[in-house]
Amino acid sequence: MAFDAVETPFGKANKIVGGSATYAAYAASFFTKPVQQISIIGYDFPQEELSAMAKRGIVLDGVERVKNKKSFFWKGRYHEDMNSRDTLVTDLNVLEDFNPIVPDSYQDANFVMLGNLMPKLQLRVIEQLRKKPKLIVMDTMNFWMETAMPDLKKVLQKVDLLLVNDAEARELTHQFSLVKAAKEIMKMGPKYLIIKKGEHGALLFNKHKVFFAPAFPLEDVFDPTGAGDTFAGGFMGYLAKTNSVSFENMKKAIIVGSAMASFCVEKFGNTKLKEISRADLNKRIRLFRELTQFETAF
Amino acid sequence: MAFDAVETPFGKANKIVGGSATYAAYAASFFTKPVQQISIIGYDFPQEELSAMAKRGIVLDGVERVKNKKSFFWKGRYHEDMNSRDTLVTDLNVLEDFNPIVPDSYQDANFVMLGNLMPKLQLRVIEQLRKKPKLIVMDTMNFWMETAMPDLKKVLQKVDLLLVNDAEARELTHQFSLVKAAKEIMKMGPKYLIIKKGEHGALLFNKHKVFFAPAFPLEDVFDPTGAGDTFAGGFMGYLAKTNSVSFENMKKAIIVGSAMASFCVEKFGNTKLKEISRADLNKRIRLFRELTQFETAF
Repeated sequence: MAFDAVETPFGKANKIVGGSATYAAYAASFFTKPVQQISIIGYDFPQEELSAMAKRGIVLDGVERVKNKKSFFWKGRYHEDMNSRDTLVTDLNVLEDFNPIVPDSYQDANFVMLGNLMPKLQLRVIEQLRKKPKLIVMDTMNFWMETAMPDLKKVLQKVDLLLVNDAEARELTHQFSLVKAAKEIMKMGPKYLIIKKGEHGALLFNKHKVFFAPAFPLEDVFDPTGAGDTFAGGFMGYLAKTNSVSFENMKKAIIVGSAMASFCVEKFGNTKLKEISRADLNKRIRLFRELTQFETAF
Repeated sequence: MAFDAVETPFGKANKIVGGSATYAAYAASFFTKPVQQISIIGYDFPQEELSAMAKRGIVLDGVERVKNKKSFFWKGRYHEDMNSRDTLVTDLNVLEDFNPIVPDSYQDANFVMLGNLMPKLQLRVIEQLRKKPKLIVMDTMNFWMETAMPDLKKVLQKVDLLLVNDAEARELTHQFSLVKAAKEIMKMGPKYLIIKKGEHGALLFNKHKVFFAPAFPLEDVFDPTGAGDTFAGGFMGYLAKTNSVSFENMKKAIIVGSAMASFCVEKFGNTKLKEISRADLNKRIRLFRELTQFETAF
């Protein structure tokens, strides 16, 4: 849970609420309650945002507030293709001291999402869980592959599903082919793998199957920040709601996540996620169906 | 119909049979007979290749053979991502004199595919048609947008479907968003548009609908040369076989084209297209189904 400043070819937003956990929680709260949040924020994180989250059934017992420090801050500028960006500022602030504690009230969680963070901290969360969840999903990034690979490999052995983008899957395995990369990653621990390709959609793998969901073709992508986290939150929220981790159900969860992400990018920050209704989401899922489904008799 | 020399990260092929029309005809001949070819070749084009084509029901009455000139030759080198390439040599040879003549025996054609060529020549083919075909599809490329835009726009007004890649759709319209580009292109004439995105799949548009088919996720892409033409040939062949240009049928034709293209890239040149059977194709279409179809009740 953090602040972002974002520049895109379409405009500029200074210091808006962002952070993986914020996007993921908003998206998941569409489907399941409670969403039990673990994060760290500074004195500057707005009370209105916390109230809005609480109203949606996002429980904040695991969110630590530091009184004399600022929240994490990231500033970035997107290129015209919106698939690449430059980081202009990264102020760790409260994140330097983050020691995630799983509250007792969270111990029943069946669906655990580990946001992109230092692998050591992801591991510490897993180690605190007294009951084995139905599904542990982890996100990560190239930075940890370059600076904390041994720890990252330990976490990989303890999770069920890894969520990375195409460049990260390639960096993790030194394989250019995503199919080959997927096979190698599943040898490292996870039974499932999602490779996000931004505007080019997402692939879901298990040992025997592969499923592909496109990104929704939009007239304008306004701000891609948080799209991947919104995707993950929608995916996890739908799985939690339906309480099934079958491959067929994961396919549907990926469509749901893609639909949520397609809303996220239509406005700056999490604005759009707060505006849409269940009816809007259902309508977009119907459009996904038209976009991808065909008569199967050839 | 031409010769290619190709270098990829996986190997090298010197002077193998290539050319858009060759790939498209092989792919189409899987579904419909006769495939009526119009092209120009030099004295060096192998008789065995012509015999192999004839055996598959590809009629060559419209193929002119020039006795004292060589066939068109292209040499290229693919980058590691296989989505981009450098052209090393382009020898026009016989193509300098190409004046496509539609034989009388071809005049009943219902499905006409105009390969990527000087727009003036594409227009000349259309003008020779005495009966309006059910569907005229054209391919083109950025080179013609830069050197023959007025002619290109004339052809666009006379075709039903334009087939381009994403970069070409953007260049043609100066729109970065493919959805916006599609809208503008359909104002230029075509009722349908296919935007090919290489390894990222293909989009089909009409005024009201959009459909997306992914590229098949392969362990290795060996040589992408001809994949787009194979896709087009499979698409056209399936439409001709089923004799319907409904949007629903075009969706299926795109899946068929994508399946054909996924074979093409597995070996150099058209080798693989000559090896596969109808059963191989059906099997891959089933894999496409698993890759894209999900239970639609959420």
